[in-house]
Amino acid sequence: MPLSANWQHLLIESPATVKLMLSRLQPIDVAEILATLNDDQLRPVLQEVSVKELALLCEEWDVDTAWRVLSLLPQEWISAIIRHMASDDRADLLGAMPETTRETVLEALAADASHIRELLAYAAESSGGLMATEFLSVRPEWTSEQALAVVRRGAQEAETAYYVYVTDQEQKLLGVLSLRELVLATPSTKVKDIMRLEPITVHENAHQEVVADLFRRYHLFALPVVNDHNVLLGIVTADDVLDVVDEEATEDMQKMSWMTPTEVPYLETSVVTLAKQRLPWLLVLMLSATFTGKIIQRFEYLLSHLVALTIFIPMLMDNAGNAGSQSATLIIRGLALGEIRQNDWLRIMSNELRVSLIVGSALAVVNFLRVLLVEKTGTPIAIVVSLALLATVILAKLVGSTLPLFAKLINVDPAIMAGPLITTVVDALSLMIYFSLARALL
Amino acid sequence: MPLSANWQHLLIESPATVKLMLSRLQPIDVAEILATLNDDQLRPVLQEVSVKELALLCEEWDVDTAWRVLSLLPQEWISAIIRHMASDDRADLLGAMPETTRETVLEALAADASHIRELLAYAAESSGGLMATEFLSVRPEWTSEQALAVVRRGAQEAETAYYVYVTDQEQKLLGVLSLRELVLATPSTKVKDIMRLEPITVHENAHQEVVADLFRRYHLFALPVVNDHNVLLGIVTADDVLDVVDEEATEDMQKMSWMTPTEVPYLETSVVTLAKQRLPWLLVLMLSATFTGKIIQRFEYLLSHLVALTIFIPMLMDNAGNAGSQSATLIIRGLALGEIRQNDWLRIMSNELRVSLIVGSALAVVNFLRVLLVEKTGTPIAIVVSLALLATVILAKLVGSTLPLFAKLINVDPAIMAGPLITTVVDALSLMIYFSLARALL
Repeated sequence: MPLSANWQHLLIESPATVKLMLSRLQPIDVAEILATLNDDQLRPVLQEVSVKELALLCEEWDVDTAWRVLSLLPQEWISAIIRHMASDDRADLLGAMPETTRETVLEALAADASHIRELLAYAAESSGGLMATEFLSVRPEWTSEQALAVVRRGAQEAETAYYVYVTDQEQKLLGVLSLRELVLATPSTKVKDIMRLEPITVHENAHQEVVADLFRRYHLFALPVVNDHNVLLGIVTADDVLDVVDEEATEDMQKMSWMTPTEVPYLETSVVTLAKQRLPWLLVLMLSATFTGKIIQRFEYLLSHLVALTIFIPMLMDNAGNAGSQSATLIIRGLALGEIRQNDWLRIMSNELRVSLIVGSALAVVNFLRVLLVEKTGTPIAIVVSLALLATVILAKLVGSTLPLFAKLINVDPAIMAGPLITTVVDALSLMIYFSLARALL
Repeated sequence: MPLSANWQHLLIESPATVKLMLSRLQPIDVAEILATLNDDQLRPVLQEVSVKELALLCEEWDVDTAWRVLSLLPQEWISAIIRHMASDDRADLLGAMPETTRETVLEALAADASHIRELLAYAAESSGGLMATEFLSVRPEWTSEQALAVVRRGAQEAETAYYVYVTDQEQKLLGVLSLRELVLATPSTKVKDIMRLEPITVHENAHQEVVADLFRRYHLFALPVVNDHNVLLGIVTADDVLDVVDEEATEDMQKMSWMTPTEVPYLETSVVTLAKQRLPWLLVLMLSATFTGKIIQRFEYLLSHLVALTIFIPMLMDNAGNAGSQSATLIIRGLALGEIRQNDWLRIMSNELRVSLIVGSALAVVNFLRVLLVEKTGTPIAIVVSLALLATVILAKLVGSTLPLFAKLINVDPAIMAGPLITTVVDALSLMIYFSLARALL
């Protein structure tokens, strides 16, 4: 980052440089450079920035940084800046403030306060928590010329001016018009004659995954959020959904590695939180190893006569886990993206059975040669290990693909079913088969 | 899907119902219902649909279905439909056609053919492969009234009419204007006086991950694609980027489960392809188990005297794999989203060391009690197993977090370094420690 280091140096020498930066760089770029300054370096720079520009910067900073910067400013500035922020970012920032400060700010914002409180009440992962309330609305009986005048007046404030929503007096959503349709229409045309009816909407309490699915399916740029009575409350735009999609994928990956999911970036998470996120599932896993322990104990007499059998336990365990999690990953991701449905289970089982026969046989043959040539433990053991490997792969793939589907059926998150849980189940089954084969054939 | 079943029934009874469907439902919904009909049911329905509507439907179907439908139609229809499709979807569809058919279609499209060929030449995962070439461009010396006239004429065709690009005679990109800025400007204002300079652009050969990163960082709705000479070639829109983000996350998840990544949805992938995707890495893993095998062979005399040690091998192996992949998942995802950078490695190592001390100690204590109370193999073995578990967790977390960072350093995909590779490395280390401790203490 030599560029950023240069700017940083210039800002410390001459705080007014920030004006040049704001005119030449994107807000996120300026925000990142300012975040590298300490409080004493930041104070003179902030003197040069307008309330509106500070509001834009606050929309880019994470809430901790935004709060650090704001606390360097007088109270009346804080309220003014927060008033200028987009409603969705504002609610996030207020939500992260100490409660006493929040109340002071809300009092200063008297007029908007009740409105802001409503937004604060939404669950963070609901469409209400995602939406911005700055949208353009027009009435069906207006002409396109009147509607365009509303766009001209309101476009600066609105989150997107590319869609204009048609509502009745009670703010119930009747239709939608794109700005291009409005520009194309003759000035005297009535809004109701050109609006599109029954626009796709989402309920205020819908989970953000539902929002992402609607954007995926219908290639949307903006999605109106309504309540039970179809009253238009706000809109979610495509740029917010990109964050949702990232978050949901991260959450699934974390669950698949048996972690309690968190949205906070790794470097901003405390060590204790990281440990708490990981410990519970490792404990469950460790305790569930009691099963594999019991199985080995049952076959102890066999192992004491044939210590060579032990050599292949790690290989079987690893293959069980990995073959299973390959299948599980494909099914979990397919379910998350809506490419796989519940009633595809028969097709999936038949697929996985055939795949595991191909993959398992290939592995078994190579393994047979490896044991004969490298481990040199003799042909009978090579046969037992290879057969056990084939059985393990088949079991692992069937369990790995079935558990996520079963989770979906009983309304548990399929991602929870992946990795370690499958490992535990397949480990136990695989050891049983291995030792039983050994007892029968050796 | 009772709704879809109803429509299907109606379509078979009366093919003209498709007209009603097209006026009431979204293209994707109609496309899905039509895809459930067999060829004989589909033919009369297609008679009712216009070329333009068929082009919209083809943009929604996957390429195989689109190709199945098109092959029911006369050759001259196919060319007309393809002419009406958006350029990005068209290139995908042509790319999937048999080469002879593609040539026939391209001949029929004579005028557009060279243009289409150019798009076909881009790598599928490049910004050139993503972009649509229908955009609106104006000249800097035009008035906003003239520019708006271009929008009115071109808006139907353009992928997004919300941004108008300002180019010189050689199509070099000079600036950008949003439709709302154009609508707000007085009619006589010159484009060059209101356009935003130096818009964010992406190079035609940039990887789609770069495109996604730009959309994430700058909250974009559309991104212009340029060549080495800053000539504007096309635009990528936010809805396409949503697909990219999904694809990239899927790819990372598949790599983390040691699969060769594929974009094709699970249910559309053949069994042989699924097997090919999974076999290579399982083979590598199985062969790498030679190391763990050798370690166990070295300690065979110890195991023959103390068979009880075998009981805990699966538990140690599973914990090694899972503790390691927890760390790896967090680091790989952090790197993919740009939240973690190369030079954070010292902080990450210190984090992971402290986390693993907390998590490892807790696991060791619980494990000690479990071995004493459940397995009943005696205090000395309980101590050895618990110490080995602590060491395994620490090693797994250090290796799990370091390998992805190291991969990034040597320009290998960090996702490849996860899961099974970490398992293999940590398995070997963990067994060495376990047996060495046992030899020393028992």
